[in-house]
Amino acid sequence: MGERQEVKLLGTWYSPVVARAKIALRLKSVDYDYFEEDLVKSELLLKSNPVHKKVPVLIHNNKPILESLNIVEYIDETWNASGPSILPSHPHDRSQARFWSAFVDDKWFPTLIATTITKSENAKAKGMDEVGEGLLLLEDAFISISKGKRFFGGEVIGFMDICLGSFLVILKAREKLNGENILDKSKTPSLCKWANEFLADDTVKNVVPEIDRVVKFMREFN
Amino acid sequence: MGERQEVKLLGTWYSPVVARAKIALRLKSVDYDYFEEDLVKSELLLKSNPVHKKVPVLIHNNKPILESLNIVEYIDETWNASGPSILPSHPHDRSQARFWSAFVDDKWFPTLIATTITKSENAKAKGMDEVGEGLLLLEDAFISISKGKRFFGGEVIGFMDICLGSFLVILKAREKLNGENILDKSKTPSLCKWANEFLADDTVKNVVPEIDRVVKFMREFN
Repeated sequence: MGERQEVKLLGTWYSPVVARAKIALRLKSVDYDYFEEDLVKSELLLKSNPVHKKVPVLIHNNKPILESLNIVEYIDETWNASGPSILPSHPHDRSQARFWSAFVDDKWFPTLIATTITKSENAKAKGMDEVGEGLLLLEDAFISISKGKRFFGGEVIGFMDICLGSFLVILKAREKLNGENILDKSKTPSLCKWANEFLADDTVKNVVPEIDRVVKFMREFN
Repeated sequence: MGERQEVKLLGTWYSPVVARAKIALRLKSVDYDYFEEDLVKSELLLKSNPVHKKVPVLIHNNKPILESLNIVEYIDETWNASGPSILPSHPHDRSQARFWSAFVDDKWFPTLIATTITKSENAKAKGMDEVGEGLLLLEDAFISISKGKRFFGGEVIGFMDICLGSFLVILKAREKLNGENILDKSKTPSLCKWANEFLADDTVKNVVPEIDRVVKFMREFN
């Protein structure tokens, strides 16, 4: 794209959904200015996202784009000539990536968060069972979609990798904080291997926060 | 597409999200076999959508595609040479269509449904206030996106029209059943005009259920 690009990203350092935008921008080699936001006080955030008041917000040539996966699709479509394609090219593969991403965002991750918040041991145990069942479904999905390659997206990180992978730092931090074993090698071996590949990838490790820093941050809330 | 196409749609007649798939298939002039499903007993449904066990399911050449808006995108991408484009072509317009569709599906419609289910008059009143505030946001979004044209999609029905419009029959049925006035001409005049245009459109009126039939169906649940 020949025209002058002004790209801003509003985020908070610990947010996994902000990491999604950072990973996508890096995959497409897009230069941008990053603004660490105070979620309570930021006027720029309120002005850019008056409906949900949430990060991330991508501002491209003064136009705000909202919601993390929506931002990832926008980045993929806008800088389509740069870097790898984030969504697969075939409509059926795209629909699978979108389906499993919705499963992660609407069902799996909210259940995991609910087990952190609840005070009831019963509800926590039931929730963790559901989280484990979700991981088994995701293990099967990974095997079926990746077809022996490193990522959901094949040999490079794609849409579903970004979606699920963005939560790995929080998952690992929680495992460390509570001595839990959420991603279990004996139950979901392919997903465990994928998680290590994802976190070790150059694109990812330079933009996601360090696990120990997140552990410290989570400890302050406990 | 030259190859032989086998397209099946699993649905239930009263489901607004099934209507989305029907509208998209009609916009693209796709022939398909429709299967009215028993949500409790259908083996085809269980086999095609083991994760959520929900309709609609589109089965294209034996491959299932799940989740209504995902199905609409799939139809748009697969039959891209046939009929109007359902999603806008510019990435920013696409991101707006996706953002407002997510607002409708994740926030506005669930709030409306919650006001039907709750027994608390307080919760109902609070929920209906939120539904009204959501409609004011959608009125502004319509004015900004449609730019004086008939639909969110311009002169033809697009992604956001299908998303929000699919709920109009239920909305009108509930207004009739309870003597309510949810879509209020004095508050959201542009949205009211849009709603009439949408329901009168040939593509829509031939595939959505009659309001009176839905009223009768809802009465059985009261």
